[in-house]
Amino acid sequence: MIKKMNIVIVGLGNIGSYFYNYLRKNKNFITNKTNIIPNILFVSAKSFTKKRNFPLPKKIWLKNYLSAAKMKNVDIIVELIGGAEGPAKKLVFEALKNKKHVITANKALVSKYGDQLSKIAEKNKVNFEFEAAVCGGMPIIRAMKEGLIANNIHKIYGILNGTSNYILSSMDKNKLEYKDSLIQAKKLGYAESNPASDVNGEDVASKLKILTALGFNSYINNKSISVEGIKNIDQTDINNANHLGYKIKLVGVAESIKNKIIQRVHPALIKENSQIAKINGVLNAVIIESYPVGKTVLQGEGAGPGPTTSSLVSDLCSVLRGNVKFPFVLSDRRRVHAAFENINNNKFSAYLRLDVKDKHGILSDVTKVMAKNKVSVKRLIQNPTSNKKNASIIIITHEAKSSSFEKVLSKLKKKNYVVNIPKIIRIEKI
Amino acid sequence: MIKKMNIVIVGLGNIGSYFYNYLRKNKNFITNKTNIIPNILFVSAKSFTKKRNFPLPKKIWLKNYLSAAKMKNVDIIVELIGGAEGPAKKLVFEALKNKKHVITANKALVSKYGDQLSKIAEKNKVNFEFEAAVCGGMPIIRAMKEGLIANNIHKIYGILNGTSNYILSSMDKNKLEYKDSLIQAKKLGYAESNPASDVNGEDVASKLKILTALGFNSYINNKSISVEGIKNIDQTDINNANHLGYKIKLVGVAESIKNKIIQRVHPALIKENSQIAKINGVLNAVIIESYPVGKTVLQGEGAGPGPTTSSLVSDLCSVLRGNVKFPFVLSDRRRVHAAFENINNNKFSAYLRLDVKDKHGILSDVTKVMAKNKVSVKRLIQNPTSNKKNASIIIITHEAKSSSFEKVLSKLKKKNYVVNIPKIIRIEKI
Repeated sequence: MIKKMNIVIVGLGNIGSYFYNYLRKNKNFITNKTNIIPNILFVSAKSFTKKRNFPLPKKIWLKNYLSAAKMKNVDIIVELIGGAEGPAKKLVFEALKNKKHVITANKALVSKYGDQLSKIAEKNKVNFEFEAAVCGGMPIIRAMKEGLIANNIHKIYGILNGTSNYILSSMDKNKLEYKDSLIQAKKLGYAESNPASDVNGEDVASKLKILTALGFNSYINNKSISVEGIKNIDQTDINNANHLGYKIKLVGVAESIKNKIIQRVHPALIKENSQIAKINGVLNAVIIESYPVGKTVLQGEGAGPGPTTSSLVSDLCSVLRGNVKFPFVLSDRRRVHAAFENINNNKFSAYLRLDVKDKHGILSDVTKVMAKNKVSVKRLIQNPTSNKKNASIIIITHEAKSSSFEKVLSKLKKKNYVVNIPKIIRIEKI
Repeated sequence: MIKKMNIVIVGLGNIGSYFYNYLRKNKNFITNKTNIIPNILFVSAKSFTKKRNFPLPKKIWLKNYLSAAKMKNVDIIVELIGGAEGPAKKLVFEALKNKKHVITANKALVSKYGDQLSKIAEKNKVNFEFEAAVCGGMPIIRAMKEGLIANNIHKIYGILNGTSNYILSSMDKNKLEYKDSLIQAKKLGYAESNPASDVNGEDVASKLKILTALGFNSYINNKSISVEGIKNIDQTDINNANHLGYKIKLVGVAESIKNKIIQRVHPALIKENSQIAKINGVLNAVIIESYPVGKTVLQGEGAGPGPTTSSLVSDLCSVLRGNVKFPFVLSDRRRVHAAFENINNNKFSAYLRLDVKDKHGILSDVTKVMAKNKVSVKRLIQNPTSNKKNASIIIITHEAKSSSFEKVLSKLKKKNYVVNIPKIIRIEKI
């Protein structure tokens, strides 16, 4: 006789609903592949009476979601509430403490409390699975934990947020300003009504922290990560980048330099012929550089209920098959507090944009400020702006320290010939 | 106390040597990740006395490789002999029959005897792992068996052979003829001294058959697969393709059309701006189209001892962690004899190249032959060749059945105005 495992799904938003219906319809499909019947014991969400376009029998409705964690016959809890605190946090902690396997798509929760949760899961010999928390349907967590397990990873980078990538792609393709591109993204369902974490880099940061912990055998590092979003990118930047042979992308990068790990999230100019520059729309791509395998690229749909369900089900099958692993590859006691460093000493070349009053002597002053702070000019373009009293200066710099750029910016900001806040965007050689 | 598992490595060629040394040096690394010590009990190969640039203690040398299958204290056998028959076949069958876990990089063996071997492994509850048999270091098998397990796959395609891809890339980049590009590939270690199976498509076919079985829940199908290599591609074709906006690649494609699966391996013209067209050198890329996840792309080093070892170790860790799965995702009794179809009725548009005597009336005759066989012209270019008595005709056709193209070719071959054997290369819309 085939055994069954009892599942409680908590949260019936876009993703929860899709996952519930997938599971309802694909019970046999999963049973065939795992030899265990995935039985939906209960579903819980804010409201039972809310109109839904799918059947939700009263007998599987669970009024108090938290009670799932304590029911004896519950094996697996799928948390699809969202948010790092509140109900999601309560549920996941309670569930793991009560020896329930947990599957979650909640990157905010995992990136904040992943270490503690992982420790409880290990102690209680249950799974804590979060494939769906990073890059939707791309099986990146599994690839790192299993497929690439042999390798020493030294760099992880890519495009980790579909919403912001859609916005930037559409600004480029349709010559839209940021605001209009965001409105379009919302209309098409690619941005939530509150897209803050998608556009300010926080969503990428959460994912990057999880990947970094996995890739570098480390505890999650929340402190020395540099995070910058895309709100300040405008059509002029996109246009300038194109003229210089670049695309602007929001990237997440974690790399080990001299045994110190640097985590950073920011918009970057990327050579238009590079692979990353061609990842458009809501697609995600992650590149892992490691030894001995070399470069591995994964690319796929980064969000949406279908792709996310694909990842949730891969986690579910892992649990059903009894494939209990350490949530972060290593036993808690073997994970390390790796040395992390902020970006201050990290060197890069950059695109510097200055809108200035069109007077003589300005260029000389700008370059003097730069020279004083050890930032040197590689290429300089000065154009009149539409307002003819002003001029736009675009400088591509040689490599310099991040802290040097900060100093240049803070000096230039104060100059009375500077019209707008000066802007620096990294040039990323990937 | 941490348990250990005893491993016998059979075969010490490029890959075997690399894997042995990796394991020797990374015992702790693997123990930390799996909680099991991977202990090299024995190594076996053709000759013990052969000069090697690494230590090989006499006490771990096993004279008779086959005896490994019967030793009580052996847990895992890693077969790195190669070849579908002979010693490799004997060893793997014996090992699985004697309840040893088997890890192999042998695509010829897996694609030929995979179904039988998988059945024995399942019966004896041991692992039969072959991540390293398909696309070197790319964790494609694991991605299909675990990461994408939720999905209904309808198309699998890509560049599955590094040697042939290197040759074609170099013909394009360095304007070399096939022969010279092959010589270069051999010099650089990208082609073996006997590269037959790499360039005639058989290597791709083996990999494709394995991926097809995995993707479509089917037994391996050896019969209705169409296989064509790259030997007939010359610089003129590469050049013509470039002028028309294409690159020539050796592709493997398995897709389900009206519930019938078509497997094919052949050179193809691919739009130069498509992702596949940009996979150059020894890289491999596989694209999986499935529901609900959408399109997933994996890209990485397709061959070589480092990447292959990465896959072997991922298999090893799977065994060490006790993650026993059905080798082809499903239990043997649930796998199906899917309906396969040959390519005769498969429609495509193509590049047709004819070198003809430069006389009047020929073009009219060629197009008449085509029309009679229901192949219509989309674009036609006629150029004089370096031999001025002849002309080269390049035709891009509309879509037509594969069988219609065969008829056109066989008719044109017999025409006395045709100088060389006419050539058809598919245009692949990927």
